Amino acid sequence: MLDALKTQVLEANLELVRRGLVLCTFGNASGIDRERGLVAIKPSGVPYDNLTSDDMVISDLSGVVMGGRLKPSSDLDTHLELYRAFPAIGGVVHTHSEFATAWAQAGREIPAYGTTHADYFYGPVPVTQELTAEEVGDDYVLNTGKAIVRRFRNLDPMAVPGVLVAGHAPFAWGKDAMEAAYHAVVLESVARMAFYTVTLNPECGGISQALLDRHHFRKHGAKATYGQGS
Amino acid sequence: MLDALKTQVLEANLELVRRGLVLCTFGNASGIDRERGLVAIKPSGVPYDNLTSDDMVISDLSGVVMGGRLKPSSDLDTHLELYRAFPAIGGVVHTHSEFATAWAQAGREIPAYGTTHADYFYGPVPVTQELTAEEVGDDYVLNTGKAIVRRFRNLDPMAVPGVLVAGHAPFAWGKDAMEAAYHAVVLESVARMAFYTVTLNPECGGISQALLDRHHFRKHGAKATYGQGS
Amino acid sequence: MLDALKTQVLEANLELVRRGLVLCTFGNASGIDRERGLVAIKPSGVPYDNLTSDDMVISDLSGVVMGGRLKPSSDLDTHLELYRAFPAIGGVVHTHSEFATAWAQAGREIPAYGTTHADYFYGPVPVTQELTAEEVGDDYVLNTGKAIVRRFRNLDPMAVPGVLVAGHAPFAWGKDAMEAAYHAVVLESVARMAFYTVTLNPECGGISQALLDRHHFRKHGAKATYGQGS
Amino acid sequence: MLDALKTQVLEANLELVRRGLVLCTFGNASGIDRERGLVAIKPSGVPYDNLTSDDMVISDLSGVVMGGRLKPSSDLDTHLELYRAFPAIGGVVHTHSEFATAWAQAGREIPAYGTTHADYFYGPVPVTQELTAEEVGDDYVLNTGKAIVRRFRNLDPMAVPGVLVAGHAPFAWGKDAMEAAYHAVVLESVARMAFYTVTLNPECGGISQALLDRHHFRKHGAKATYGQGS
Repeated sequence: MLDALKTQVLEANLELVRRGLVLCTFGNASGIDRERGLVAIKPSGVPYDNLTSDDMVISDLSGVVMGGRLKPSSDLDTHLELYRAFPAIGGVVHTHSEFATAWAQAGREIPAYGTTHADYFYGPVPVTQELTAEEVGDDYVLNTGKAIVRRFRNLDPMAVPGVLVAGHAPFAWGKDAMEAAYHAVVLESVARMAFYTVTLNPECGGISQALLDRHHFRKHGAKATYGQGS
Repeated sequence: MLDALKTQVLEANLELVRRGLVLCTFGNASGIDRERGLVAIKPSGVPYDNLTSDDMVISDLSGVVMGGRLKPSSDLDTHLELYRAFPAIGGVVHTHSEFATAWAQAGREIPAYGTTHADYFYGPVPVTQELTAEEVGDDYVLNTGKAIVRRFRNLDPMAVPGVLVAGHAPFAWGKDAMEAAYHAVVLESVARMAFYTVTLNPECGGISQALLDRHHFRKHGAKATYGQGS
Repeated sequence: MLDALKTQVLEANLELVRRGLVLCTFGNASGIDRERGLVAIKPSGVPYDNLTSDDMVISDLSGVVMGGRLKPSSDLDTHLELYRAFPAIGGVVHTHSEFATAWAQAGREIPAYGTTHADYFYGPVPVTQELTAEEVGDDYVLNTGKAIVRRFRNLDPMAVPGVLVAGHAPFAWGKDAMEAAYHAVVLESVARMAFYTVTLNPECGGISQALLDRHHFRKHGAKATYGQGS
Repeated sequence: MLDALKTQVLEANLELVRRGLVLCTFGNASGIDRERGLVAIKPSGVPYDNLTSDDMVISDLSGVVMGGRLKPSSDLDTHLELYRAFPAIGGVVHTHSEFATAWAQAGREIPAYGTTHADYFYGPVPVTQELTAEEVGDDYVLNTGKAIVRRFRNLDPMAVPGVLVAGHAPFAWGKDAMEAAYHAVVLESVARMAFYTVTLNPECGGISQALLDRHHFRKHGAKATYGQGS
């Protein structure tokens, strides 16, 4: 009965590969069935080439894995923390895509330098605080999720569907696994253009609030005009 | 009777994808039939994979859409303003290609650093002023076109067939949709090489007026010698 | 009886090409059969397109080549020195991959800026000293190996499976030829992201010792939890 | 009787495309039959897709074109000047490859930062002086060749088989058209790595004379040891 979810989660994982966001096995996508409270996620350390939807591992929101022979992605606890804290999201993606990871490693948020950014991220893509030595201990993966949630205390995760984990790499999310993957693709492109922008103009202040609002609300909310929707 | 126009506009849109200038659906190309005063443009937010020439949306120069089930690109009003103000152009292209967008986001014009640039752009690729909060309001897309036209008050759009919209991305144009797409491709390459050039030599003054003239008039005007034309 | 070794060494060489790490013939991979004390290595200056496993050249650890019509890679003596000095390694790879080579040319070690790095390299990727004019003489290739070994006097080659040879390019190694190739791939990606990171934040101090430990020991040693291993 | 020459010149032109060195039609390769004093070169402004060896245009060393319906590359006079001044060369290539062009636009020579460079270029890849307004006049293309030859007054063109024309782009050459194309490929890779190197270390002094000698003479001259040659 989770077949559709597992199929989409597989597809989201493969989309990350097709878009060049993951090298080797550095990436994972998951999706959630909110009614059942069950998450499907990529198994740990398995090459993408032979993945099938049946390889997706099912877990409840507390991390109890349901059957299956494979272990879930080692990042499962981060995904679960995001599902618990952000009830509107239906999919989570983690990659080490190169430009977003570079901003994360540099410990810099990505400012809203242009309308590409504004179409998807309503304000800077934030960066978490570095984890303390204690947080890096036994509950490291869970604490990564908590650091993200803490960073979003005054942010709407549906308005800013991604984050940079300091010294690590990006996470992105969306209404389902495919949208999370799509946001990860956009985030990498935004990160790349922001890198070139700040190199060309280190003092660049980014776009105005008016332009940020205009582009964001063009695609989101009651007044959205983009696409073929009525 | 607009079949040839729609076919070429489709082809120009697909060329942008093949050349890697558009990510997801961030881009659009249009062409105009000057005799009929009708413009064909890509529909809004439709994936490129299944586009057919019949999906191209027809509009008159005032923005009245002729039949069809699809909405035109959300950038239509910018295209129309360019067709109205620049009577010599027959095609317009908009992309978020990464290096040209970075220069636009940085708010810097692209200087004529070399002969690749000079073969296509007779002088710097200019950048518009930022739009005011008021301009970003209801007529935002039209005002984007007006900002471009204002920037070209003392420039010949056929000698400089492209522009950077500040905080946004490039537009390019040409005698028809395919040439507009070609100029968008060249603009991205020129933007990339200019990025590397200014990184290597922040004081680079660009090529001499004599060299700029030589390369420009090699391909344009009565003394053109390039190619197989007689 | 060395067929399996030669096949894997061929495969490792081809993997370098598939991953875009070698231009023309600038790269080579080798593997060792520790019981027999024999090394299989790519022949010198032969295009990759027609390489077969039988083209792999067999040498003993002192550099005596066993039969075969082809000369071994001109870098053989570096590989042999590494096999002699690092008894735990089973494969060696040399490439001129572009970002790792740039760090080598710049004479800078690659700091551990993030967890991608920490998963594979327990600390900075070190850079050797420049060779003296004397070392560049007759035993140049051997001396390259000696410079690497000298740089690892207080380092564990299994914890840091790669190095930058100053003014030259990277070497990587692993438990066999395929793992060495894999480490060369990761090294290039790490080098690329480190380049962007240090451009964004020249003062970047890298990740904490706690995070470095956490990621390293997640994949290495008795407490490893990554992948499907029990 | 020039069939073999024309076939190789075609192949060299196509190699430039396969290697990503030319965008649109910005590039050309030629080769010379020294006995007959005849040069075969790509025609001007013809797309690469349908080029055949019979499209190659034949010219004598004074620029008199032999039969054929197509006009030669507009850069012919530069190629001819190089063939006249450098009797050892048998092929010439011109591209606007992006990193080499950036160095040319920046007006900076490419220092010998590493052994990849040293294997092919015995010292910096030089940059010409800018052409004067007078030189940019009627004999502009010829004067480009003369500027290159002037820059090589104290250089051996077989030891440094390429150059950057200031504000323009690179030329490369070799014993025949294919080797010229190969040198253009290496030059672009060397230019790319040098860009990253100088960004990482603006004070980088490059490799020692001893290392430059070692790598150069490894592949050139009586003591060459690289490859399968006896």
